[in-house]
Amino acid sequence: MEPDQSTDIRSVAIVGLGLIGGSLARDLAARGVRVAGWDQDVAAFQAANAAGIVHQLLGPESDPVDALVIAVPVRAAPLMLRRALQYAAGARLITDAGSTKRSIVHAAETMGIGARFVGSHPLAGDHRSGWDASRTGLFDGARVFLSPTASTEPGAMRLAHALWTLAGARPEEMDADAHDQRLAWTSHLPQLVSSALAAALAGQGIARGELGPGGRDVTRLAGSSLGMWTDIALDNADAIVPALQAAEARLRDIRYAIANGDDARLRDLLADAREWHGGDG
Amino acid sequence: MEPDQSTDIRSVAIVGLGLIGGSLARDLAARGVRVAGWDQDVAAFQAANAAGIVHQLLGPESDPVDALVIAVPVRAAPLMLRRALQYAAGARLITDAGSTKRSIVHAAETMGIGARFVGSHPLAGDHRSGWDASRTGLFDGARVFLSPTASTEPGAMRLAHALWTLAGARPEEMDADAHDQRLAWTSHLPQLVSSALAAALAGQGIARGELGPGGRDVTRLAGSSLGMWTDIALDNADAIVPALQAAEARLRDIRYAIANGDDARLRDLLADAREWHGGDG
Repeated sequence: MEPDQSTDIRSVAIVGLGLIGGSLARDLAARGVRVAGWDQDVAAFQAANAAGIVHQLLGPESDPVDALVIAVPVRAAPLMLRRALQYAAGARLITDAGSTKRSIVHAAETMGIGARFVGSHPLAGDHRSGWDASRTGLFDGARVFLSPTASTEPGAMRLAHALWTLAGARPEEMDADAHDQRLAWTSHLPQLVSSALAAALAGQGIARGELGPGGRDVTRLAGSSLGMWTDIALDNADAIVPALQAAEARLRDIRYAIANGDDARLRDLLADAREWHGGDG
Repeated sequence: MEPDQSTDIRSVAIVGLGLIGGSLARDLAARGVRVAGWDQDVAAFQAANAAGIVHQLLGPESDPVDALVIAVPVRAAPLMLRRALQYAAGARLITDAGSTKRSIVHAAETMGIGARFVGSHPLAGDHRSGWDASRTGLFDGARVFLSPTASTEPGAMRLAHALWTLAGARPEEMDADAHDQRLAWTSHLPQLVSSALAAALAGQGIARGELGPGGRDVTRLAGSSLGMWTDIALDNADAIVPALQAAEARLRDIRYAIANGDDARLRDLLADAREWHGGDG
């Protein structure tokens, strides 16, 4: 019998039924895919099951699936992947949905499933989390980065494209190293800067309601999931630390210019920022 | 003849027809107030005049006014106030619209117009600026802080309330020192943190379009007016510098926790931020 070359995805197992896993389950179920699921919070599985989104608990008794998706915080992902694999051993695509890609790609290679593994990172989210925050259409038009292992086979990559396209996302391949470097700046740094500002305001006893619309924008991300971001930051530490240092250096430059009454220097620093912004809202 | 105790405002002179002065002119004109105006950019005056918003150039030939409003960058305000006074000598209310209050209140006291002066700071704005950005309704429901001098008379304060209420704003009295301390944290710090992050991303060659919605929120303020913010930061330097130091300290704490793989410490720092945020979007 020929290996199955189809990109038809009829069944998926999703581990982690939170904002990302739950929303993916909703989108796939809406397109006729059978979804088996598991969550460490039994209530999340029960809610997803009662809603008719997840038809079966992933476990020793569950049916074979075409694809396995691990959608848990990034530092928990390797262990959950190893556990889930025993119940989805025949999956032709194994992927995840985490915000870092090096560690999970490395874990997949170590487990000997590199040929079938493609790391996924959908650029979709919300500062809310959990099954209750999940919704249909979360991935509509969203970019999703796909990071192969050293041995990912073309068929697995095609399936990864098919899976995310089915969920409404726009897949884009990117090496795991490049991904983690880039996301350290484009995503992890803004998140941590927002949190640092929020923590500073908290320390001064300033309530968020005292801020104007602009200040509320800057601190919006500070409400993001604690566990998810602790995980991401520690998992991508070597890329994030230099980005944080760069932000600290710019803040210090601005502070020195202000403390010294250095009009020209301050204007230059703010001009760099304004030019970068480009005035597009 | 009795001194005029009316809070009826029939004519106003506005110096600076940018986002704030121009929008105030529009709101007041719409309510039947005659507006004389002046701007260092003659084209701004001409546009305001052609639009039927500003009926007269403030100058040696202009009519007496009930109130004079200085709406220029804060470090230019004392000089513009001194110049404008000669053409609005009879104004029963003299005020401004700047984001800092100590320096202009002090300038008014020094000029001997403390009795008629009330500092104003409407919490309304936009990252755009200039007459073209001005619009009716900018102040609708916005808080406006009113800071008296040491000698502001009750009649002048009543007029300040009347003026801003006429423009749709909600006046709230606050001592100039308390105002500048508070705004250093609630407004100036978020602005400068947003600019510092933008400058760091610019330095790394990351375009704003590569950020997700959350990152775009954090960097939105970086597009704000350069001249206005250079002015505010230098005018309120002694209050802003400790606020910047606090933000730098939190960023450094976060960086150390990440570099040391200190899960508990990082979680605590992000929890402070998240608890402060309160999850209200």
